[in-house]
Amino acid sequence: MVKSFPDQKTSNASSFAPPSDSRQRISEFMRGLQDRICQGLEALDGEGTFQEDAWEREEGGGGRSRVLKSGAVFEQGGVNFSEVWGKDLPPSILIQRPEAAGHSFYATGASMVLHPHSPYIPTVHLNYRYFEAGPVWWFGGGIDLTPYYPFVEDVVHFHQTLKQACDRHHTEYYRTFKLWCDEYFYLKHRQETRGVGGIFFDYQDGQGKLYRGPDPKGTAAIHSEAVGELNSRSWDDLFAFVQDCGNAFLPAYVPIAERRRHLEWGDRERHFQLYRRGRYVEFNLVYDRGTIFGLQTNGRIESILMSLPPLVRWEYSYHPEPNTPEANLYETFLKPQDWLEM
Amino acid sequence: MVKSFPDQKTSNASSFAPPSDSRQRISEFMRGLQDRICQGLEALDGEGTFQEDAWEREEGGGGRSRVLKSGAVFEQGGVNFSEVWGKDLPPSILIQRPEAAGHSFYATGASMVLHPHSPYIPTVHLNYRYFEAGPVWWFGGGIDLTPYYPFVEDVVHFHQTLKQACDRHHTEYYRTFKLWCDEYFYLKHRQETRGVGGIFFDYQDGQGKLYRGPDPKGTAAIHSEAVGELNSRSWDDLFAFVQDCGNAFLPAYVPIAERRRHLEWGDRERHFQLYRRGRYVEFNLVYDRGTIFGLQTNGRIESILMSLPPLVRWEYSYHPEPNTPEANLYETFLKPQDWLEM
Repeated sequence: MVKSFPDQKTSNASSFAPPSDSRQRISEFMRGLQDRICQGLEALDGEGTFQEDAWEREEGGGGRSRVLKSGAVFEQGGVNFSEVWGKDLPPSILIQRPEAAGHSFYATGASMVLHPHSPYIPTVHLNYRYFEAGPVWWFGGGIDLTPYYPFVEDVVHFHQTLKQACDRHHTEYYRTFKLWCDEYFYLKHRQETRGVGGIFFDYQDGQGKLYRGPDPKGTAAIHSEAVGELNSRSWDDLFAFVQDCGNAFLPAYVPIAERRRHLEWGDRERHFQLYRRGRYVEFNLVYDRGTIFGLQTNGRIESILMSLPPLVRWEYSYHPEPNTPEANLYETFLKPQDWLEM
Repeated sequence: MVKSFPDQKTSNASSFAPPSDSRQRISEFMRGLQDRICQGLEALDGEGTFQEDAWEREEGGGGRSRVLKSGAVFEQGGVNFSEVWGKDLPPSILIQRPEAAGHSFYATGASMVLHPHSPYIPTVHLNYRYFEAGPVWWFGGGIDLTPYYPFVEDVVHFHQTLKQACDRHHTEYYRTFKLWCDEYFYLKHRQETRGVGGIFFDYQDGQGKLYRGPDPKGTAAIHSEAVGELNSRSWDDLFAFVQDCGNAFLPAYVPIAERRRHLEWGDRERHFQLYRRGRYVEFNLVYDRGTIFGLQTNGRIESILMSLPPLVRWEYSYHPEPNTPEANLYETFLKPQDWLEM
């Protein structure tokens, strides 16, 4: 399905250069991650199966999009793999990576959004990606959880599992990338986090800076400053870290879905879930970096917007009644929290 | 509700300066337009009534948002009036109006989006607005129709009514602003128009240029070039034009709703309507200038997002069956057409 990608340059060999088979290794991992996630989710769902669309991109590369519809657990789930290349990175990335200007780029990644039927099972998102462009390369991505009727123990389990994956690579990864996640998955216009967060990072190239996010005065930046530079990270170190992050998804999420799948729910919970799904749409269309990258690079639109929920409500001027589970979501869970200290 | 606005400068008196009572006259018109539209829509609906929220904006000004929910004709309708001022216009406007940089601004306008129950009654949007900032002022806005199961005669009636309003002011207004509307209400990522268009214009200040849109090579620009400069437009000329445009909404739309309100529809039509409403969300959150202005100027979020539909579906990789009414929408109505020549 995927045409052979352009020859890799070897002329920019420095201590930070990727190995000569970097693209092959990372795209194989991303494909395998998609396979393992789909298998794990089909086993969890028990009824639904993923349907695949393989696609090619005119400017170079392609992908395989997999969607599960109307399963026992999932109303809709999408898991994408893509590997694309082209002449120029879009402006939104070049602002962050000016060294890439004038160079062709290579990008590969896996992404996923799941919308369960039950309001007691959280929506969840994962994306890991890798870029090469001229003299620069980097890893990015993350995973975050968006519950409707949350249980603290589920949130702690999710964060604990991600922390374990991070801790195998650096003691400060979890804290830094957890803060970055809170900062990134934030709806400024609503003054709400998208959910209970997880981890997020971008522009990880082993060249010192842990935090390269948009807010130089935010808590993630302050924490990263305190950690100092991490000059010892090689391409292989970072790749191993991203592999552990990707592989942490199933153990982080499946036990939550298993625990909550048999809870009964009614119109009230469904009504609130559909309303809250509106925030997911607002985030993805207004702020999401992956969506904007896809729209700017003439990506496959159905794959990019596969993250949008199958059914959504908006309601003018909705506010939850005080002392309800819905109010509790806003008051406790839609604010950045130190979940592992609660 | 609205605090008195800052004193109007009179020092920039030139042949293009607005009259000394410009702000009062235009905001009175916008308030009155909101009143007349709400009255007309309540009469049409027969059951639903508008509920008003008056609000103030911390940085200056305020507005009144009116929403009708669960009427006989309308599932949801929102009609806003706002009058705001502040220190700086946001970057998205300063790019188009660099002369306004460093000056405080004043803006007033009315906006409306209606989501009918029946898939046979189109969604419709209206927005007219007026800005002053230092040495510059301008009018902008438009009105456009988004049918689900369209009737050509309805589309022709809508455009004909707008053309009549335009023709009273300049023979080239309708054609230019119709082309601009097709260009503006276009979903690039879907390669579809939002609906069957209407009219749209922006940055009308009487200083020669009819077209100040984003595409200097588009059909609207080409047509505007052929028309030549319109140096004779005074503030009063343009205000009279905007008044006629605003007042054309009820005669353009009400007869369509009256004609179609008793048509029966079922699950199939409702299903398709909810799917197509997704495009409205995509447009408003990704492209809409009013939404972006609101988000960038810390506007009242519930009023800005009042345009979003009460219930929406997304469906991965949906394509209408050939030779169906749904396919006909895509093939005939979601492409720019010269409706008055059909």
